[in-house]
Amino acid sequence: MKLIDGKKIASEILDSLTHKIEQFPRKIGLAFLLVGENQASLAYVRMKKKACSRIGIQSIVKEYPADTSQEELLKEISQLNLDPQIDGILVQLPLPAHFDTLRVTRSIAPEKDVDGFHPINMGKLLLGEADGFLPCTPHGIQQLLAHTLPIEGKHVVIVGRSNIVGKPLAVLLSQKKKGANATVTLAHSQSKNLSEITQTADILIAAIGQPRFIKKEMVRPGCVVIDVGINRVQNEEKLVGDVDFDAVAPIASWITPVPGGVGPMTIAMLMQNTLESATRRG
Amino acid sequence: MKLIDGKKIASEILDSLTHKIEQFPRKIGLAFLLVGENQASLAYVRMKKKACSRIGIQSIVKEYPADTSQEELLKEISQLNLDPQIDGILVQLPLPAHFDTLRVTRSIAPEKDVDGFHPINMGKLLLGEADGFLPCTPHGIQQLLAHTLPIEGKHVVIVGRSNIVGKPLAVLLSQKKKGANATVTLAHSQSKNLSEITQTADILIAAIGQPRFIKKEMVRPGCVVIDVGINRVQNEEKLVGDVDFDAVAPIASWITPVPGGVGPMTIAMLMQNTLESATRRG
Repeated sequence: MKLIDGKKIASEILDSLTHKIEQFPRKIGLAFLLVGENQASLAYVRMKKKACSRIGIQSIVKEYPADTSQEELLKEISQLNLDPQIDGILVQLPLPAHFDTLRVTRSIAPEKDVDGFHPINMGKLLLGEADGFLPCTPHGIQQLLAHTLPIEGKHVVIVGRSNIVGKPLAVLLSQKKKGANATVTLAHSQSKNLSEITQTADILIAAIGQPRFIKKEMVRPGCVVIDVGINRVQNEEKLVGDVDFDAVAPIASWITPVPGGVGPMTIAMLMQNTLESATRRG
Repeated sequence: MKLIDGKKIASEILDSLTHKIEQFPRKIGLAFLLVGENQASLAYVRMKKKACSRIGIQSIVKEYPADTSQEELLKEISQLNLDPQIDGILVQLPLPAHFDTLRVTRSIAPEKDVDGFHPINMGKLLLGEADGFLPCTPHGIQQLLAHTLPIEGKHVVIVGRSNIVGKPLAVLLSQKKKGANATVTLAHSQSKNLSEITQTADILIAAIGQPRFIKKEMVRPGCVVIDVGINRVQNEEKLVGDVDFDAVAPIASWITPVPGGVGPMTIAMLMQNTLESATRRG
């Protein structure tokens, strides 16, 4: 078993971005909107902000109390849409329950939607059009795999069909493109014979949001295992992935750790999208 | 083996639409744009136009010579986008080689894009948002299946990853919705061990555009087989599907004929989208 070192691969990507950002003729700006005090959200924004300062992107974090109205948030977004110094806008999810998340996501100008969540960017992904933004976690996973092994023609099984990971990732890895071109199965909580299906995988991607859901019996020896889960479990100090790491690692050919696998790649792809946006905007 | 009678199911759908269109307070309009003299395109537009007259939708067909400029077509589309009597706009593909098909498709107002090919409608499909238009062939296949058997939890293998069928269909059948909720594998020409993969299917969907590509050896006895192909083969008078029908039919539990399977459903879903557009537009 070999570990896929997402932290290291992400760090290399960030270094190559730093160089390009230094050459860029103006400051690049990324705005974070954070509503409420979700601890995980605060931690994510902190990490993203840190990556920005590392590579020379100017970040601004706008924090709002949990009882902020949707109107107020939409107004802020529409100002940022017009602000020439802002290249990317990221609304940290989840939003408090009184927000219509869809409406908020759609209100971000597609050309500043560096998270890649706007329907038009999702549609461009599905159609294989190159002028949108790829969602960061799927793109980070694709890059992790491309750094590790050839995936062309391989059978990838994804467990979990979220809008943020499973569905766009299935589309991305199926594309007729270098570093993709895989046969992809999208499985989920309602799949029958799930173990049988996961055992057919050359590459197994766990993105179901349940701690240690993927057991040893579900994995074919020699499989490549990517763990997208970040779960907090009662009475355990460390974060836990969707894969039962201790049992699965010995039989996997490659496996990502949690943390230090997919997470850092998500952030690296966000930085890459922001530079891409700035480059397109000029 | 039982035949899935797409013609009959489509006809029932058209009947139910007719009733609703009769009740609708104004005329509903669908515009077809046809460039050049591709014989298959002419035939398709004729069939769609026939469906319009059957159910009471007013259709207009605008025909252009093959050497029409892209500017001219875009100008026509922008006029139709603004025309209050037009609820749906359909540019029959393929366009002649000098057209940028992506640009043309994107120029149709998303709220009149009854083909469902605009990136924003594809994105809404991927995100499971209900206010877009579903692409007609994938939606027709989903409806055919839903009329035939429960597909929840079943393993669907799709062979072919086109933007028009394979990719959107994979997304549609994976959704957490009634009449979907399947485990979906998207395979294609670059898939390794394709026969092994197709043999794991409860439902096999052939959409690869190669005559009789799916052989008996690739199909598990008892499988449900959907044939999306419409191929013209030299020295054969009849249209040929992507499935080797004569060999596969005896071992399939259900199978669609070509013609009379998926084709009529595509047209029925186009009519349904057009009524939906009119209803939304009021």
